[in-house]
Amino acid sequence: MQNRAAVLHGVGDLRIEEVPVPEPGPKEVLVEVRAVGVCGSDVHYYDHGRIGAYVVAAPLILGHEAAGVVVAQGSEASRHQVGQRVALEPGVPCGRCRQCRAGRYNLCPDVRFFATPPIHGAFCTYLTIHEDFAFPLPDTVSDDAGALIEPLSVGVWACRKARLAGGEHVLVTGAGPIGLLAMQAALALGATEVTITDVNPSRLELARQTGATRTINLRSQPLSEAGVEAEVLLECSGHPAALADGIRALAPAGVAVAVGMSPGEEATIPLAALQNRELTLTGTFRYANTYPTAIGLVAAGRVDLEAIVSGHYALDEAEQALQAGKNDPQSVKAVVVPSQAATAQRADGAR
Amino acid sequence: MQNRAAVLHGVGDLRIEEVPVPEPGPKEVLVEVRAVGVCGSDVHYYDHGRIGAYVVAAPLILGHEAAGVVVAQGSEASRHQVGQRVALEPGVPCGRCRQCRAGRYNLCPDVRFFATPPIHGAFCTYLTIHEDFAFPLPDTVSDDAGALIEPLSVGVWACRKARLAGGEHVLVTGAGPIGLLAMQAALALGATEVTITDVNPSRLELARQTGATRTINLRSQPLSEAGVEAEVLLECSGHPAALADGIRALAPAGVAVAVGMSPGEEATIPLAALQNRELTLTGTFRYANTYPTAIGLVAAGRVDLEAIVSGHYALDEAEQALQAGKNDPQSVKAVVVPSQAATAQRADGAR
Amino acid sequence: MQNRAAVLHGVGDLRIEEVPVPEPGPKEVLVEVRAVGVCGSDVHYYDHGRIGAYVVAAPLILGHEAAGVVVAQGSEASRHQVGQRVALEPGVPCGRCRQCRAGRYNLCPDVRFFATPPIHGAFCTYLTIHEDFAFPLPDTVSDDAGALIEPLSVGVWACRKARLAGGEHVLVTGAGPIGLLAMQAALALGATEVTITDVNPSRLELARQTGATRTINLRSQPLSEAGVEAEVLLECSGHPAALADGIRALAPAGVAVAVGMSPGEEATIPLAALQNRELTLTGTFRYANTYPTAIGLVAAGRVDLEAIVSGHYALDEAEQALQAGKNDPQSVKAVVVPSQAATAQRADGAR
Amino acid sequence: MQNRAAVLHGVGDLRIEEVPVPEPGPKEVLVEVRAVGVCGSDVHYYDHGRIGAYVVAAPLILGHEAAGVVVAQGSEASRHQVGQRVALEPGVPCGRCRQCRAGRYNLCPDVRFFATPPIHGAFCTYLTIHEDFAFPLPDTVSDDAGALIEPLSVGVWACRKARLAGGEHVLVTGAGPIGLLAMQAALALGATEVTITDVNPSRLELARQTGATRTINLRSQPLSEAGVEAEVLLECSGHPAALADGIRALAPAGVAVAVGMSPGEEATIPLAALQNRELTLTGTFRYANTYPTAIGLVAAGRVDLEAIVSGHYALDEAEQALQAGKNDPQSVKAVVVPSQAATAQRADGAR
Repeated sequence: MQNRAAVLHGVGDLRIEEVPVPEPGPKEVLVEVRAVGVCGSDVHYYDHGRIGAYVVAAPLILGHEAAGVVVAQGSEASRHQVGQRVALEPGVPCGRCRQCRAGRYNLCPDVRFFATPPIHGAFCTYLTIHEDFAFPLPDTVSDDAGALIEPLSVGVWACRKARLAGGEHVLVTGAGPIGLLAMQAALALGATEVTITDVNPSRLELARQTGATRTINLRSQPLSEAGVEAEVLLECSGHPAALADGIRALAPAGVAVAVGMSPGEEATIPLAALQNRELTLTGTFRYANTYPTAIGLVAAGRVDLEAIVSGHYALDEAEQALQAGKNDPQSVKAVVVPSQAATAQRADGAR
Repeated sequence: MQNRAAVLHGVGDLRIEEVPVPEPGPKEVLVEVRAVGVCGSDVHYYDHGRIGAYVVAAPLILGHEAAGVVVAQGSEASRHQVGQRVALEPGVPCGRCRQCRAGRYNLCPDVRFFATPPIHGAFCTYLTIHEDFAFPLPDTVSDDAGALIEPLSVGVWACRKARLAGGEHVLVTGAGPIGLLAMQAALALGATEVTITDVNPSRLELARQTGATRTINLRSQPLSEAGVEAEVLLECSGHPAALADGIRALAPAGVAVAVGMSPGEEATIPLAALQNRELTLTGTFRYANTYPTAIGLVAAGRVDLEAIVSGHYALDEAEQALQAGKNDPQSVKAVVVPSQAATAQRADGAR
Repeated sequence: MQNRAAVLHGVGDLRIEEVPVPEPGPKEVLVEVRAVGVCGSDVHYYDHGRIGAYVVAAPLILGHEAAGVVVAQGSEASRHQVGQRVALEPGVPCGRCRQCRAGRYNLCPDVRFFATPPIHGAFCTYLTIHEDFAFPLPDTVSDDAGALIEPLSVGVWACRKARLAGGEHVLVTGAGPIGLLAMQAALALGATEVTITDVNPSRLELARQTGATRTINLRSQPLSEAGVEAEVLLECSGHPAALADGIRALAPAGVAVAVGMSPGEEATIPLAALQNRELTLTGTFRYANTYPTAIGLVAAGRVDLEAIVSGHYALDEAEQALQAGKNDPQSVKAVVVPSQAATAQRADGAR
Repeated sequence: MQNRAAVLHGVGDLRIEEVPVPEPGPKEVLVEVRAVGVCGSDVHYYDHGRIGAYVVAAPLILGHEAAGVVVAQGSEASRHQVGQRVALEPGVPCGRCRQCRAGRYNLCPDVRFFATPPIHGAFCTYLTIHEDFAFPLPDTVSDDAGALIEPLSVGVWACRKARLAGGEHVLVTGAGPIGLLAMQAALALGATEVTITDVNPSRLELARQTGATRTINLRSQPLSEAGVEAEVLLECSGHPAALADGIRALAPAGVAVAVGMSPGEEATIPLAALQNRELTLTGTFRYANTYPTAIGLVAAGRVDLEAIVSGHYALDEAEQALQAGKNDPQSVKAVVVPSQAATAQRADGAR
């Protein structure tokens, strides 16, 4: 057993190294990683060495969107069989604090989250995780899809925060991976109309192919002139103006969910509209209790995760995977396949 | 303009008569009826002359699942254009009482509901309704589907009462029209597994064709031996035993919704299980605020209402429509088409 | 029967005039007004002739916080007896539109709300109202308290929007009439700690007397240095900075409710904190379904409305009532008593 | 350090024994017990040696309503100081399973709950508990009150299950310790009317003294003739007929919560009423996330726990404490004080 990992040593300094195979704790499983999605946060750590208060002070394995197969179990772990394919929920909370007890474990101050300093992530061959945070994947769900259960969870969580009940018109601002999956989640959970905005035509085209009932390219038409009235806004672009404009487009009693992280600490919102229409604004921080639902939606064919995969990369090509978004406007979601030989990448056709 | 109606004069005494064309009130519209579904309650009035405390004391036009087209408007009605195709929500509440103010207008003690003595129903050529209870139908939604928005509303309401949030395993007991549509509603609103039970193989087959992930014929396998653990029970059969057995099949924190009306006033339930697992039991009485959602789901192609239509009948054949269910185990939902010539019925192929 | 009214003819031009006694419609009651609170919005119309888009284009009777006694009934009104003392909910919605049907009648676009152009208010001897919007007052609730059920409703509504469930630490920013009553409502509904902020020492003292567990004078201590961590913020000052600072003081999963209207259309909020802690921000526009609860709380002795009454005025003194707040920092809530002789005012002792 | 305990060896066989002082685990605290309430379940184990499937197979220390003081801490425990007075939440869940992750830790299948075989309880001098399940008590909350935070939690949980929002009329059936505290919880959380029923006049008198707005002795007046219409039923007697009668007394959209455990597995309920009025029935199993709220309500003076304490007993008198309810109809809640000398009991005056 050999464990190879893509380790970030500093800004732009990613090295493929051999690291020890971790020993599972009593309630943990050892997982051989099969697929890991590249997230914007991975890219941000690679580019800047930090995200806000989280600083890469010591070498860090990146990657937190992962699926794999159980290859060994700790002494008290009993939930899985060796050989079980699993999606990995990357944040394991303390399970005891006030937030955990209330079911809001995503807000646990002691959560250990993959690829968030000092916790290592999943760009590697082997890792360990508490057995309760490894979720069985049916055979009909591929490794790629298993990895992307993580960003789909972000979308499912956004829909829950929006208290989506079915029949809504949902406005999604930003057609990046999160916006695209939040859109699919909304449709799968009963939204009957989804309008999505972006400035990238190929992403809007992909949105159309995966269910958007309307796409708006903001370069041609500002949202304020598009005549949109939605019950729900899922803001996935991280642009403060998108949040404000999206809130203005909400019907009375509508709900806005800020999913995308904007660069600043503050944002300006249309407060009078929020009060006069009794709108609600909330935000999401990761997710809680979403994995079974997200897996169920994919298994039932309601959400197509492969549709957003735009390239596969061997572990040796992790750096290229991290740079795919910068170099190619068609790139949506790069997936690292630790077991793949480096040259396999070229065989991956354009979507 | 001539208004013909199927009028119930007493038990088993249905007469086709000419009645006056009603005059729309200031905020009402005059609607030419295009399609009316036959509901079990219509059959019950025909067979027994009453449903519980509701007694047919004077001649009554039956039918409350209706769609049509606006042909005239009252002096203050402005919501529609003449020619607009509409689905009719058959209960118009007072709008002022405590229940109405709270948004629970289905519990309004002064609601005027079609085909509930002494309010006439929709087995006729023309009727009037408050403009706010006529809901525009997109071109993609047929007249048949427009009529069946009513029973679909029952299913949507059941799902809302169950607080369906997506990803659930839903158990539907009873594959009659309501059970079949509650099942489709659950799937459209995010349920990822639906198990449905009945004793009629053709209805179970129809359930399978319209999305059930599992069907159980209770003649071959009692529910208690089927290994079902569901988060939600939608009891649509009206059998008290189905309710009790369904509750026993619920996972902790599950919700049971009693939709089907059972013959007695009381029922025996597994209270200890309800307490130990903190289950919730509630019931539905009609629906509220469901029409836009139901129409949206059909327009978006998430629910197939035509799938349950098993026969069309002219107004002159209303009596045959009322008896279709008794005479033919394959019959699911009969639809009366007031404008149709009597002989057209035979052209309606088996589903 | 003589109906005298305080009629606003233009900015600062309030005239006491005789107006016709209105005739109740079929479902309305005629009410003799006993007490009317002066609200900031009345003062704003008096000072500026408008509030945003609402412009006093024709003479307008002000006042919307009213209690009185039923003296006559319309032909179909049956809910009350002549002689019944009632609190008046000042906004009567259409009862049919989408918002009304959903129980959000405060968002009804066709609501007719007292003292909002062109609908007359309650600074008069007689007025009419739909019988369902006149709520019986028990003998233990005074006329003053009956009038102030209206601002208490604002507080109850804010608590409902905050989904107050009991045991919370509630931060109230702004100790004006609305802040003081929102604070009392929060305590009555189970909040166990309430911190209230203002810059007016006499208002903070009144807050202490009516239940605040902590008061903060922002002139001596900025909120950011006070070490407050609350589950709920009820922003009642209308200062944008209070909203932003209050949001920063919320615990994870906390809820902020913007009750006070700020002068601008927009506000800057700490979005990153809202996202990272998954806070919720919403606003209130009037209230819905609060009158029975508010009356019940006062009748049960949980809320003391007389505590905030700082002066009584005859109808002839309505102008002085409108100016009381400007002239006296101790003034909190002026009440106009239409039946009172003008000289009685001086007999009104300090609170 | 000496640890004395009241150990149940079999039906009616309670022995005072010296047991080892337990060693706190890394995240645990060692607590010196100051007060322990006697619960009906303790009595049931003493009388029958089992409760349903829970069988006392080995010697068991009873008692789960406890308060004490922290006297030592485990190696990783940091939440408390030695000397901190604490109320003990008696059920420590696994923190990882599906129920725990969802915030429903009371439904955790692996919960370790005091005095439930094979987990020892609190009729002893010293015990250990996870630091997160020991809740600090303010100085204003007595040891007795600290112990009774446990049954108050049952009442708070019942109110949460009832979605009590303030202003409700609550019907409590059964004025035993749980009914009396559920009643006080309802009042503290905003209920404005509480009707309570029982057949024991002294308990009804106690209910009146602690806030009931109406008491009904069912020996003189059946509930069905009392004209009660409530929004919420808290069934605390465990009598199936009380549940059925209470449900019949609910207003439309009302909620019934079955708190009391009835002897049988099943119960007969008025299903037609539940459906026609869209009532909701649920049950409670212990509680979750209630301790901070319950402590806050007592500290704020909203709930009076001492009011229901009817006698204090030394550890040596634990058997008498268990039999107090059988021997004295005035007895409501017996409290065992492990540090108390046996003769002190007689000094305990009538309530």
